[in-house]
Amino acid sequence: MRTTTGWRATGPDTVGRTQLTRRDLRPDDIAVRVDFCGVCHSDVHALRAHDDHAGSALVPGHEFTGVVTETGHDVTAFSVGDDVAVGNIVDSCGTCAMCAAGQENYCHSFPTLTYGGVDRVDGSTTLGAYSREYVVREGFAYALPAGLDPAAAAPLMCAGVTVWEPLRALRVGSDSRVAVVGLGGLGHLAVKMAVALGATTTVISRSEDKREDALRLGAHAFVDSTDDQRMTAARDTFDVVIDTVSAPHDLAPYLKTVAMDGTLSLVGYLGQVTIETTDLLLGRKKLSSSGSGGRPGTAEMLRFCADHGIVADIEVLASSEVNTALERLRRNDVRYRFVLDMSELG
Amino acid sequence: MRTTTGWRATGPDTVGRTQLTRRDLRPDDIAVRVDFCGVCHSDVHALRAHDDHAGSALVPGHEFTGVVTETGHDVTAFSVGDDVAVGNIVDSCGTCAMCAAGQENYCHSFPTLTYGGVDRVDGSTTLGAYSREYVVREGFAYALPAGLDPAAAAPLMCAGVTVWEPLRALRVGSDSRVAVVGLGGLGHLAVKMAVALGATTTVISRSEDKREDALRLGAHAFVDSTDDQRMTAARDTFDVVIDTVSAPHDLAPYLKTVAMDGTLSLVGYLGQVTIETTDLLLGRKKLSSSGSGGRPGTAEMLRFCADHGIVADIEVLASSEVNTALERLRRNDVRYRFVLDMSELG
Repeated sequence: MRTTTGWRATGPDTVGRTQLTRRDLRPDDIAVRVDFCGVCHSDVHALRAHDDHAGSALVPGHEFTGVVTETGHDVTAFSVGDDVAVGNIVDSCGTCAMCAAGQENYCHSFPTLTYGGVDRVDGSTTLGAYSREYVVREGFAYALPAGLDPAAAAPLMCAGVTVWEPLRALRVGSDSRVAVVGLGGLGHLAVKMAVALGATTTVISRSEDKREDALRLGAHAFVDSTDDQRMTAARDTFDVVIDTVSAPHDLAPYLKTVAMDGTLSLVGYLGQVTIETTDLLLGRKKLSSSGSGGRPGTAEMLRFCADHGIVADIEVLASSEVNTALERLRRNDVRYRFVLDMSELG
Repeated sequence: MRTTTGWRATGPDTVGRTQLTRRDLRPDDIAVRVDFCGVCHSDVHALRAHDDHAGSALVPGHEFTGVVTETGHDVTAFSVGDDVAVGNIVDSCGTCAMCAAGQENYCHSFPTLTYGGVDRVDGSTTLGAYSREYVVREGFAYALPAGLDPAAAAPLMCAGVTVWEPLRALRVGSDSRVAVVGLGGLGHLAVKMAVALGATTTVISRSEDKREDALRLGAHAFVDSTDDQRMTAARDTFDVVIDTVSAPHDLAPYLKTVAMDGTLSLVGYLGQVTIETTDLLLGRKKLSSSGSGGRPGTAEMLRFCADHGIVADIEVLASSEVNTALERLRRNDVRYRFVLDMSELG
């Protein structure tokens, strides 16, 4: 076993510094020195949901970049010293129809999550990248394209691919009218990507103070969702609405803004939702949802971001300030993503 | 005013013979001698919902065929003696984006329903086609193609166009895998149309005794929805699932059968529905709904049915047996659509 340092759950809202072990490298594993790890809303939710008396520790972190420090015997894609990025899944069955289609994120026997998942070989619980080292199958690591800042690129691996996936699946291009609901970690990347894809892009937010940022990020318009008149004017006008809000909320106002045959795509985890079918019917609209991305899509997203100079707007904190990051994230006090700098962990 | 005979609500489940009036022809109106009118589930629901003390009578009936008996001054599309068909909408604003797009069924100021609607000129409540005569704007009547039996074609105008609309919007063709949930008035037409469009077509039904009929109608496979093993095997296998069930039901089992990027399309009116977003997420699936069709789509549907010899499987009853039809329909005791023969009304 290998030993490293990281941050594990110590309560429903906090983590504390800890030693933890990583497996010895299997033939197709690489060891990664984690340099930067994004702080995702999922981390907040996972801490809240974690049972302190559970058998295993919770170490969050599932969007990170770093450098390869060691490779297993059979590794061919990476060499020591390579810059790599890893997202929120680290394995899948590899044989089901979803895996065969390059959508390991929907693996029929469930993909192995980067933390809180079950390792497919030894059955252990995976520990995340709030730590200085991570060991991962090479197939679930991605070469970080030159030109992408490693800190600002880390959030691409969860927030980024999560919004990239529906933008691509819904064929967003220069003739698309896209709205992004919520301007946070996911939303601000959705805006940058939609704009780079050529779409006419609108931000819908209840925070009028996001207007300036929305336009700075490249959005062509801003709609204050509390302005009934403006929301009524937006009726039936967007081919694709990417709803990034990760707390339960009424979908009806956003469904109404979807154009004929368009789609409201939910990317924040909302659990059970209730809708009036009439809100779909009047315009033959669609409600969809997706989660992260498969391997080909993730690689494509990284190339696209490199080509268009897209990274997250981040605030970098030393990993010792992780509890501050978590606390401020709970208050949505970040524009737009915290990234932990792991260098002080040694 | 013109006088005719028809059937009006006399209770939550029954209608009784009545005299009723039709408007004098406006310049763009035609008068139609109603020969055949289908009995739709909506009629049952409308009777149940009708308030006997409401100001106006309820005369059901919104899928009918007949012959033009008189034309307004400005009518150009029809002449006396023409065979015509009319569906569940008879007017719309004509100016909104939906009307401009030929989707009058989604008119922003709501289309005028064939019965229980509000006439856009005089504000009166429209009375349906359980009657010997109907007066309608020519733009909402359709030439009945030669070769389509007028009795068996009547249900195309509501049941038919309602399933045609999503099949076309979802681009069903020879490379599509389609499932039809529920084999009733809508379902049996969805099967015929999907098969004629070249799709590999499966019927999903809880009634094993529908298997033989499903195959006779052209379906390539039948899945008993109460057979868990068979439903599990059907997971992620259909590009389009047309759910024709018109009573509240759990959508989860059917969402699971939708393939990656596929769509579950609801065509029965279900009001509010609750779903687990995970059932959409695991495969980036879509939930949609639609209602009847616009004018171009309706005309296209009639041409397609004429080209492929598609009509409804019907049981024709004299209109004096309408209460029997309604009662048996409530018990789903019909394969697959009752059509009332209005000739005895004079």
